[in-house]
Amino acid sequence: MSEHAVVGKGVPRVDALEKVTGAAKYGADINFPGMLHARIFRSTEVHAKILSIDTSEAEKLPGVHAIITQDDIPTGRAVFAKEKVLYYGEPLGAVAATDPDIAEEAAELVKVEYEPLPVVQDVMESIKPDAPHLLNDRTKDGPRRRVITRQLKKLSKETGEDNSAEIERLNAELGGLDDEIYYNVAGETHESAGDVEQGFAESDVVVEGTYTIPRVHQVYMEPHVSVAQAEPSGKLTVWASTQGHFAIRSGIAGVLGIPLSDINVVGVTMGGGFGGRFNIQATHVPAVILSQKTGRPVKAQLNREEEFLDGRPGAGCVIKLKTGVMDDGTIVARKALAFWDCGSVAGGPIANTIRIRGVYKFPHLQMDAYAVHTNKSGTTSYRAPGAPQAIFAAESQLDEIATIIGMDPVDLRMKNMREEGDQVPAGATEPIVGYKETLKAAADAVDWWNREKGPNQGWGVAVGDWTNGCGPGAVYVSVHEDGSVRLFHGSMDITGTDTAMAQIAAEVLTVPYEQVSITRGDTNSAPYNTGSGGSVVTFTMGNTAKLAAEDARGRLLELAAQRLNTDIEHVELRDGKVSLTNGDAPKSLSLGELAAYSLSTTGGPIVGKGSLSGRLSAPAVAVQIAKVEVNPETGNTKVLRTVASQDVGFAINPIAVEGQIEGGVVQGYAWSMMEEMQYDEKGNVNPGFVDYRVPTTADIPRIESVIVEVPAPNGPYGAKGVGEPSLTPTLATFANAVTDATGVRINDLPIKPEKIVNALKSNGNGSR
Amino acid sequence: MSEHAVVGKGVPRVDALEKVTGAAKYGADINFPGMLHARIFRSTEVHAKILSIDTSEAEKLPGVHAIITQDDIPTGRAVFAKEKVLYYGEPLGAVAATDPDIAEEAAELVKVEYEPLPVVQDVMESIKPDAPHLLNDRTKDGPRRRVITRQLKKLSKETGEDNSAEIERLNAELGGLDDEIYYNVAGETHESAGDVEQGFAESDVVVEGTYTIPRVHQVYMEPHVSVAQAEPSGKLTVWASTQGHFAIRSGIAGVLGIPLSDINVVGVTMGGGFGGRFNIQATHVPAVILSQKTGRPVKAQLNREEEFLDGRPGAGCVIKLKTGVMDDGTIVARKALAFWDCGSVAGGPIANTIRIRGVYKFPHLQMDAYAVHTNKSGTTSYRAPGAPQAIFAAESQLDEIATIIGMDPVDLRMKNMREEGDQVPAGATEPIVGYKETLKAAADAVDWWNREKGPNQGWGVAVGDWTNGCGPGAVYVSVHEDGSVRLFHGSMDITGTDTAMAQIAAEVLTVPYEQVSITRGDTNSAPYNTGSGGSVVTFTMGNTAKLAAEDARGRLLELAAQRLNTDIEHVELRDGKVSLTNGDAPKSLSLGELAAYSLSTTGGPIVGKGSLSGRLSAPAVAVQIAKVEVNPETGNTKVLRTVASQDVGFAINPIAVEGQIEGGVVQGYAWSMMEEMQYDEKGNVNPGFVDYRVPTTADIPRIESVIVEVPAPNGPYGAKGVGEPSLTPTLATFANAVTDATGVRINDLPIKPEKIVNALKSNGNGSR
Repeated sequence: MSEHAVVGKGVPRVDALEKVTGAAKYGADINFPGMLHARIFRSTEVHAKILSIDTSEAEKLPGVHAIITQDDIPTGRAVFAKEKVLYYGEPLGAVAATDPDIAEEAAELVKVEYEPLPVVQDVMESIKPDAPHLLNDRTKDGPRRRVITRQLKKLSKETGEDNSAEIERLNAELGGLDDEIYYNVAGETHESAGDVEQGFAESDVVVEGTYTIPRVHQVYMEPHVSVAQAEPSGKLTVWASTQGHFAIRSGIAGVLGIPLSDINVVGVTMGGGFGGRFNIQATHVPAVILSQKTGRPVKAQLNREEEFLDGRPGAGCVIKLKTGVMDDGTIVARKALAFWDCGSVAGGPIANTIRIRGVYKFPHLQMDAYAVHTNKSGTTSYRAPGAPQAIFAAESQLDEIATIIGMDPVDLRMKNMREEGDQVPAGATEPIVGYKETLKAAADAVDWWNREKGPNQGWGVAVGDWTNGCGPGAVYVSVHEDGSVRLFHGSMDITGTDTAMAQIAAEVLTVPYEQVSITRGDTNSAPYNTGSGGSVVTFTMGNTAKLAAEDARGRLLELAAQRLNTDIEHVELRDGKVSLTNGDAPKSLSLGELAAYSLSTTGGPIVGKGSLSGRLSAPAVAVQIAKVEVNPETGNTKVLRTVASQDVGFAINPIAVEGQIEGGVVQGYAWSMMEEMQYDEKGNVNPGFVDYRVPTTADIPRIESVIVEVPAPNGPYGAKGVGEPSLTPTLATFANAVTDATGVRINDLPIKPEKIVNALKSNGNGSR
Repeated sequence: MSEHAVVGKGVPRVDALEKVTGAAKYGADINFPGMLHARIFRSTEVHAKILSIDTSEAEKLPGVHAIITQDDIPTGRAVFAKEKVLYYGEPLGAVAATDPDIAEEAAELVKVEYEPLPVVQDVMESIKPDAPHLLNDRTKDGPRRRVITRQLKKLSKETGEDNSAEIERLNAELGGLDDEIYYNVAGETHESAGDVEQGFAESDVVVEGTYTIPRVHQVYMEPHVSVAQAEPSGKLTVWASTQGHFAIRSGIAGVLGIPLSDINVVGVTMGGGFGGRFNIQATHVPAVILSQKTGRPVKAQLNREEEFLDGRPGAGCVIKLKTGVMDDGTIVARKALAFWDCGSVAGGPIANTIRIRGVYKFPHLQMDAYAVHTNKSGTTSYRAPGAPQAIFAAESQLDEIATIIGMDPVDLRMKNMREEGDQVPAGATEPIVGYKETLKAAADAVDWWNREKGPNQGWGVAVGDWTNGCGPGAVYVSVHEDGSVRLFHGSMDITGTDTAMAQIAAEVLTVPYEQVSITRGDTNSAPYNTGSGGSVVTFTMGNTAKLAAEDARGRLLELAAQRLNTDIEHVELRDGKVSLTNGDAPKSLSLGELAAYSLSTTGGPIVGKGSLSGRLSAPAVAVQIAKVEVNPETGNTKVLRTVASQDVGFAINPIAVEGQIEGGVVQGYAWSMMEEMQYDEKGNVNPGFVDYRVPTTADIPRIESVIVEVPAPNGPYGAKGVGEPSLTPTLATFANAVTDATGVRINDLPIKPEKIVNALKSNGNGSR
């Protein structure tokens, strides 16, 4: 029995009706009279010097209003390629014309002369000394490891002398670095605990493997789009489909070199994001500059091919992983060397390589991770960035170990799991966690220790973990004369977060959920808000909604006490009414009556505010178990059953939580089985849904979600962020199940039918 | 020397640039793809029964999407005439079509059959027993005085008997009522103090007069306009040019019978209001219903002729005024009987007939005021509603008395003016007031007691008074990472109120005015706000802006103390920076630094709130002195000089205050000299600027504004509402000056050249 009336209940989403009726306004639905349409013209080379860009023919085309290139960027910050292109499809400039067809035609009339350069597409090739140096002429650091460069620079400054002799010494001094020198490195992270080499020496069994995870696209349904309007005053309005309109505001302010207060970003309904919708270059900045040039509203919108060529997908990587255990299953040491393919833009989730530690006790741990340039577009976040990749390697290897030492994979995991108060390797102490409960819940759901399988069938289990972030945000609550309650805030709704906030306000103010509505403000009206990524929203904004509703409740109680001629401690809010606590008088005042009364008192309209920046969250864990069947002739796999348990702290809206779990699992299977962005010397060769396969409902089994609730001490009603964890274990779960079914282990995702057939062939075995 | 840095200084308005560049978006600028255009079809009779409305021909016109009549109003509340029309131009329904011309053509195709009824256009005719009874079939009260009706009803209920015999007795009992029975009365107000008949008996001199003031239009530059969009969910968005979008929201909710939370009203830039822009029937409701019927956005917009025929202008009236004084100028008693022409809709500023008491001590006062129906459109507020009319009568008569008793008109006024602590006749006790200071300031400005005049020249003085209201409102303040400050609120900017709020926030937060910006929210996002009328805005919202900025300042100080490792009492905010008060450490943190820091602390983004409903204001007074020259041959008048002094409490933005004074004086001269809506049996006969004369710059002298500052105890920095007082004395000032120049007194506005010539003729005198 829940102690709560609204939170913890499955309610329809606040935006359900507008979504299902098609009334919701997405970026593409924003249109203004006189609006121009932008088209970006792009590199047709993968790696080349730009010799010239000639827009003269394009300018002559009737209907063309403006053409911009990098020279039009006031701060010179990189928006378009100017001297060199680094990937096929890299933006060179943009055209604004009266209709999209004219813009496209004009873009094709732009003539670019190139001098081709050698291409590198593979991270393991790119780190070699003989690889083409991709950003040699763009960054001063050159192709060597940045840490060394920084040290050398410092030394040069101090001594003024040649310091080549110091390289060796410094290289030796830099603890935790691999011995090799890697080229084309854009960034690096190192973490360690204990002494990993000593750990391996003490281990009974040491297992090594190399895991390859492809670059995948977030495949949000709505391509990037924006509409910009520059005013004569210099003020800008941008209608942006984004996960964070305040981030877009500061991004545009930075590129344009203008104050934040000159820019108003209106966040429109978002057609999916998954981490990929914080980008300002794709459409926002081109639309803004073209609007400034023309004085007209300008819409910039990518098509699906452009999304693949120039979107910022999730990074692929190669992880070399080594784990040492005792014969009884006690994990002793783990070492990871990871190379993340960040394409042409420094970045990538290298720090999250740390997820290789999972939820286990490791006395010894070492992680060295590098972001490596290749001739591809940049990357960005994709749902729990880095974790599915790292956990694929970690949990695949742990399964291999279970097989080697002859231990049940669930038992092996349970034995090593951390508990409250345990030391997190290279981290802090565990707070209250639900790792074991969640693993047990999944195992119980499938009756794991009595599981059965037929021929060519197998079971897989994996454990993924994640912690939600918490960013700055604020909420205002108003209570209106008809008793309705409205929340106002600046957070982009991401699959149900607005609904959770409305539930929380309804709970605090003791009114039906239907009585609460919620409005998102643009950056000119709403208080600052962090972006809707990193599973922050319900945790952060749920808390601020609670604070704001409590602030409004305080005011309601105060007002009622005044109205009922009593003290505030003698009144209580229940069922949407404030009554006397002593109960002997039947007097009560509804929210609507109090709101109406507030308009004629000195205290003013009933408004509550809640503001919050940082609160420590608690770790969330997701455990998945799958049963698969593999056809050894065709290599086709079928997921017969899948159970996904997740510690969500507290499920504010169980329907939405299940939706999040299901969504993550679906994306996980897609990545496991079929999704990969493919590249050759011509660039991305599968930029569309014909060649880039995404699953259909026929590919995905029914997902059995199991909600585990180990409350987060700082979460609203104990809630944790639920958006990301469910994707983290799926890749490994599927791989482990396929291995259990076939006896072969494939460490190179996606596990496509041909890979299974080939592996079985080389294993000399068609079935098990 | 001002103690303030930003308030009290003349600054350019926050919206100056967008206004002068034409970038500001007014109602007419709101357009959406697929938008339909509405046209209202109207009565071509002045008073008639509606026999039938046939829309069949109109419906057939290609491009017509919907036609609505009163039958489409879900609650049945009166929007369109159904059984009877009461004035020429009364709305009967509306058409939505793909373009405005088609809509107009369709409106003309609607066939209406009428049965004409007798017409009454003059209040003094309408109150007579033989006048047509205009709302006989619409209200149950019938044409008799409501008070009597109510009493009779009560009696009938109690006794169940015929009570006609009681009428006489009740009529006698109803204290303060005039002896007559008036017909077509829509409402009445009565106020009294002392015993007025006794007062007249004691007076040395008693003067009587009848004053006639015409109905005038507010003549805002922008006619009524709205765009409505009904969503499939039942939600509505209305883009409204209005003085109060929250009022429009509740008005629409009432007519449609739907909850407030289903309606979002976006207040767009307003092209003038002057009290006339709170109306929901003119365009908002027709646009909404047509959008609901068609599912498309619908724009409804009046043209200038429709504004005159069906706008809600300021009411005209006839005031019978009687004043008794002693020979030494001491005022003893005053009695007013006023009939306000409210047209077809009950209303009118009858209660403000009380302004006949002015700023003077009256031992005996009586006021009986009636709203009377005529065959005209309804009326509504116009800048200090009722006051210019009542003060015209009162101050004209006072001037006449000055002449009769041979006393200087300024001396007579000064002698009788109330001071702090004096009893307001039929009112409370005067708080601190600046009546005498303001009269003296105007007199000094023209060196009154040494004033000179040539032939056909004259001087006039009059005193008008007003008190601003205070309504509910709230403001949020955000401080951003670049140090900029933003206010967010739900108040419609009315000639500089946003600017005053920005100044106040800048003052409190010690930043330059330019660093503050201000955003108005729609009703879905902003906290509740009262309408921008009754001079409430700067008083109310200035106070809330101050509270909100102070709230944000508190948070800044708290954060700075935390950051500087000290207590809050050891830090201070100065010049946009928080520093240590002890001064010996040079540490300081700018607003931008603190805002950035706030995003990473538990306290969250810096947001301040201020909420307020009722605060008592202080009376404001406006004194005007004019010197005019009259051409006795043509009757043409020329204002040679005009001085306008006004007690504004504190001038937050002196430029804006002077603008308000000048605007009121211009409207006052227009009403005095030329403006009047003219009616005959065909209805309003001057519905356009050819026949309804408004002044040009050639008609108006330079206005010398004198700002007097007697602080209002509850005003922000002492400010009082400044928008309305300046119109209140102008009518009487002009009339008094003309009398001084010509020797004839004209009590029937406007004082047009022909009236002067005729008066001089009947006076047997061509010049003085």
